[in-house]
Amino acid sequence: MAETIKFYGFWRSIASFRVRVALRLKALPFEEIAIDLMAGAQFSPDYARLNPQHVLPTLLYGGATLFQSMAIMEYLDELHPEPGLLPKTAADRAYARALALIAVADSHPLIVPRVRRHLSETYGCDEAAIHQWAAHWTAKGLETYEALLTRRRPAPFAVGDSVSLADICIASQIVAAGFFGVALGPYPTAAALGERCFALPAFADSHPRRQPGAPSS
Amino acid sequence: MAETIKFYGFWRSIASFRVRVALRLKALPFEEIAIDLMAGAQFSPDYARLNPQHVLPTLLYGGATLFQSMAIMEYLDELHPEPGLLPKTAADRAYARALALIAVADSHPLIVPRVRRHLSETYGCDEAAIHQWAAHWTAKGLETYEALLTRRRPAPFAVGDSVSLADICIASQIVAAGFFGVALGPYPTAAALGERCFALPAFADSHPRRQPGAPSS
Repeated sequence: MAETIKFYGFWRSIASFRVRVALRLKALPFEEIAIDLMAGAQFSPDYARLNPQHVLPTLLYGGATLFQSMAIMEYLDELHPEPGLLPKTAADRAYARALALIAVADSHPLIVPRVRRHLSETYGCDEAAIHQWAAHWTAKGLETYEALLTRRRPAPFAVGDSVSLADICIASQIVAAGFFGVALGPYPTAAALGERCFALPAFADSHPRRQPGAPSS
Repeated sequence: MAETIKFYGFWRSIASFRVRVALRLKALPFEEIAIDLMAGAQFSPDYARLNPQHVLPTLLYGGATLFQSMAIMEYLDELHPEPGLLPKTAADRAYARALALIAVADSHPLIVPRVRRHLSETYGCDEAAIHQWAAHWTAKGLETYEALLTRRRPAPFAVGDSVSLADICIASQIVAAGFFGVALGPYPTAAALGERCFALPAFADSHPRRQPGAPSS
């Protein structure tokens, strides 16, 4: 019997979304345990033992405790190579990883709960200023995606004919845009790619708004 | 004759430091072209054509234009597997990548020039507030490293007996601590690992303070 993967996530967590998509693309059964980021459950002693950084997601699989969405997706891809989440050539793999990292390592780290909280508690930012901050950096990431995707057009996915890490991360950037009210009009190529992604059940079923606990509107 | 790698970097760029170390560990000859981040050279039309995100580093190698330090290091490791920058088992590779991403995808994105500039221009932060911001997030990353490295002790490197991506990225966090005056006292395990890294010429010779253009103190 296949091991059931334990996946600590949360409906609103954008990094959790990425891992959820990867699990579904590979048809791996998983049990998702909700860690309520808004209620501060990531700081509970039990969760801190799993993840001393108090962030999501964490995966328990194959005897390993895994964290960081990008590292988890690479791990899943190594253990279950089909369907592959990385292109065939080294140069294309580097490009897919670089595209993924624009969300994972440039835009998204700026808008996570701990940063929004720090802006409020230490810099006295009000709700509107924090929202503006998150919208600004989300738009910056989309700007970069649009520039790169215009240079090398999706065919139909970001790096060729099948979904890669790049598409998952670009889709996660589009999820963030939804959260912070960033209009997609200026980013038509990225938006069209996002539509192709969310037409796939692995993406649609993983969308934050479709997870237990998510508000209905 | 081996192709000379073109490496667009800058002495102060922490992401450039990571790639420089990887190139040296693999004994790959490279030509570094300085893009002066402080003078805004990353916004020049010539550089923007290479890297529309206006960030460092960019590598021209094997006909590919490569960006994002983590993606570049993975690419170098795929093309030149010896010495390997990733451990032997999938679980250890996931752990090494996760450790790397704590700097690459959590701490470092918060302190890059564009974020410091945004804090100043849009949020009216003065020099002291920006310095405090950068020191805060650099310390947070070191806290996480210390917690994880205490749980699984370096032996002698972060994930076993040879240098991996994890060590390069932890060393880059220690470089950031130096820039922002973060004392290493509370992070003895991370600091000791950093010392072991900087005892190696590939790390020592790549340190920002030892690059052309760096101030002498």
